[in-house]
Amino acid sequence: MTVEIGLDDIEDLAIGSALLGTGGGGDPYIGSLLCREAIGNFGPVRMIDVSQLADDDAVFGAAAMGAPTVMIEKLYSIEDQDRAIRALERYMGRTATAITSLEIGGCNSMMPVAYAAMRGLPIVDGDGMGRAFPQLQMTSFNIGGVKCAPMTLADEHGNVVVFETDSGLKAEELARPLVAAMGAAACMSCYPMTGSEARSTLVPGTLSAAIAIGRAVSGKRHADLAPVERLLAALRELPLYGYANCVFEGKIVEVERVTRDGWVFGTCTMRAPEPSHDAVVTFQNENLTFSIGTELKCVVPDLVMIVDTETAHAIPTERLAYGQRVSVIACSAPRQLTSQEALDVVGPKGFGLDVPYTSVKSLLA
Amino acid sequence: MTVEIGLDDIEDLAIGSALLGTGGGGDPYIGSLLCREAIGNFGPVRMIDVSQLADDDAVFGAAAMGAPTVMIEKLYSIEDQDRAIRALERYMGRTATAITSLEIGGCNSMMPVAYAAMRGLPIVDGDGMGRAFPQLQMTSFNIGGVKCAPMTLADEHGNVVVFETDSGLKAEELARPLVAAMGAAACMSCYPMTGSEARSTLVPGTLSAAIAIGRAVSGKRHADLAPVERLLAALRELPLYGYANCVFEGKIVEVERVTRDGWVFGTCTMRAPEPSHDAVVTFQNENLTFSIGTELKCVVPDLVMIVDTETAHAIPTERLAYGQRVSVIACSAPRQLTSQEALDVVGPKGFGLDVPYTSVKSLLA
Repeated sequence: MTVEIGLDDIEDLAIGSALLGTGGGGDPYIGSLLCREAIGNFGPVRMIDVSQLADDDAVFGAAAMGAPTVMIEKLYSIEDQDRAIRALERYMGRTATAITSLEIGGCNSMMPVAYAAMRGLPIVDGDGMGRAFPQLQMTSFNIGGVKCAPMTLADEHGNVVVFETDSGLKAEELARPLVAAMGAAACMSCYPMTGSEARSTLVPGTLSAAIAIGRAVSGKRHADLAPVERLLAALRELPLYGYANCVFEGKIVEVERVTRDGWVFGTCTMRAPEPSHDAVVTFQNENLTFSIGTELKCVVPDLVMIVDTETAHAIPTERLAYGQRVSVIACSAPRQLTSQEALDVVGPKGFGLDVPYTSVKSLLA
Repeated sequence: MTVEIGLDDIEDLAIGSALLGTGGGGDPYIGSLLCREAIGNFGPVRMIDVSQLADDDAVFGAAAMGAPTVMIEKLYSIEDQDRAIRALERYMGRTATAITSLEIGGCNSMMPVAYAAMRGLPIVDGDGMGRAFPQLQMTSFNIGGVKCAPMTLADEHGNVVVFETDSGLKAEELARPLVAAMGAAACMSCYPMTGSEARSTLVPGTLSAAIAIGRAVSGKRHADLAPVERLLAALRELPLYGYANCVFEGKIVEVERVTRDGWVFGTCTMRAPEPSHDAVVTFQNENLTFSIGTELKCVVPDLVMIVDTETAHAIPTERLAYGQRVSVIACSAPRQLTSQEALDVVGPKGFGLDVPYTSVKSLLA
């Protein structure tokens, strides 16, 4: 069975990626432009299931790193991505035979598709997060024992940096200030791995999941339902996520946002027509928590999506603004992210939050 | 003719390097420990004149990068230096045939000697600054058209980073925040070049000059003179520097120092027994200017040395303290640093100082 991602899938992929990006992952509009151009020039991309990977395949992760607030102004190109991947190939003396996304979020699930098109390589149906996270060590690859480095960073001026480090956290600590020095956005390649490593560590099926979600939200499926209902129906159909609910509907009354150390941090406060309490989403590139009043209702790694109530399209953190009418969707994380080992890396503790992880299903029960 | 640097030369090299380091280059005491151990283990180091370099020699620059205030607490080792050089060798597919100092200052003129001993490689009698400077692009190599990158950084945890960039300034801009993330001190290798490139760009004779200065200050030569006079006599004998004078004698009354962005910035104010005005030295790792009252008396790239009046030993910026009795020596820079091209990089403009360069000889006339 051959599955291809063609021009017709790009809009759905952009919609779904933005939603699974839970506020982060970079602007999917830029990603869709990159995909359209690459697929237009080089033809559709073959999407392979993890089961189709050979043990000795060379799977290279592709992504952009930086602050989403910057990425909508300082664009990056497929040439930057190419420079990062080729530098890693040269450094390792191996040529990529497949490309994978690090995170199925926003632009970071689209650039790898565009890049795979350009190189004529297959893209793996899966990623290292099953959503988006703000730091390099926060991947199922790392949790499963695959090393982030050697990794490379490339900027739009032709500067390339190669890192060798044993720990994913150290890769993050070294790369982040460098990305800041590169203007707070750069392209990267990391987590080079074999086919068997990819098979045993990645969150499978997320790329096709993003497309399926996009298809529903855009009305190609569940056309009889309202947009937010269509989104919920699509999420509930996916065994990967499973539990999903709309937990708030209201208007944004305040957004605080600061771009610092290469990330964007902030809070978004929302009010319902008949408020008992305001609802608040906190974020670090991606949405981390959702609370109503003092009650925590959803916490990372479970997914918090802020969507436009009328269209059910995601609103990324960098575009949240006063007055927007929004719904908040809370959704359970893929199981790869909720083991004790995983929670140490991508749970509340990994973000310095002083709350234990409780699944959204229990919090909302 | 074979010239060797042996155990007997280490103390003189340390004294001379600290003086030519004009306050920076890292603590020479640490450098002398490294040299003693390496020469003790591996034997003396062959020092070669630039004329002895073959055109196709592979000359690798060795140095530590960071804030001297940090380097006296967070030590670095010859193993870190080895990791940096070997990473660059692997990356370039070339093996070093000679080692050069980037700057003839403090530890940075001694670690390369220790490293050459360990590898059994010759060390070139010369360096890229003819003194010490705080930034990577501030070298005669760069001024002469040799590229700083590919370059490598290595820290004490085994982390290694390789940079590819066209400009020396960009290498500095990318490496500095990374060094800060590595704990404000790391070992590096950069300016890999051929023997003919080294011959045409480096400031020759500085390593033997540092030893000669050290020999005089320690009283092995000019024993009839007072220490500061011995230092001046040694400097005046070297065609490389030529003009040197003692421009102030007094007591330190104030030191301001801040460690920021991986450098140490500050001012040192001194007072003479019968003051007309206080004298001030400003520094960024290295001493940049010397003024009496509002009158500028010496400005970078000319050399400002603050020495202990009793011993004529240099006091590095990180050890300046209230109450020390000091003399200030002003000395002309090697001619490689005072061409118009060079002044754009290592003159007052290169440090954001709003004064034109005037030679110390004219300023003191």
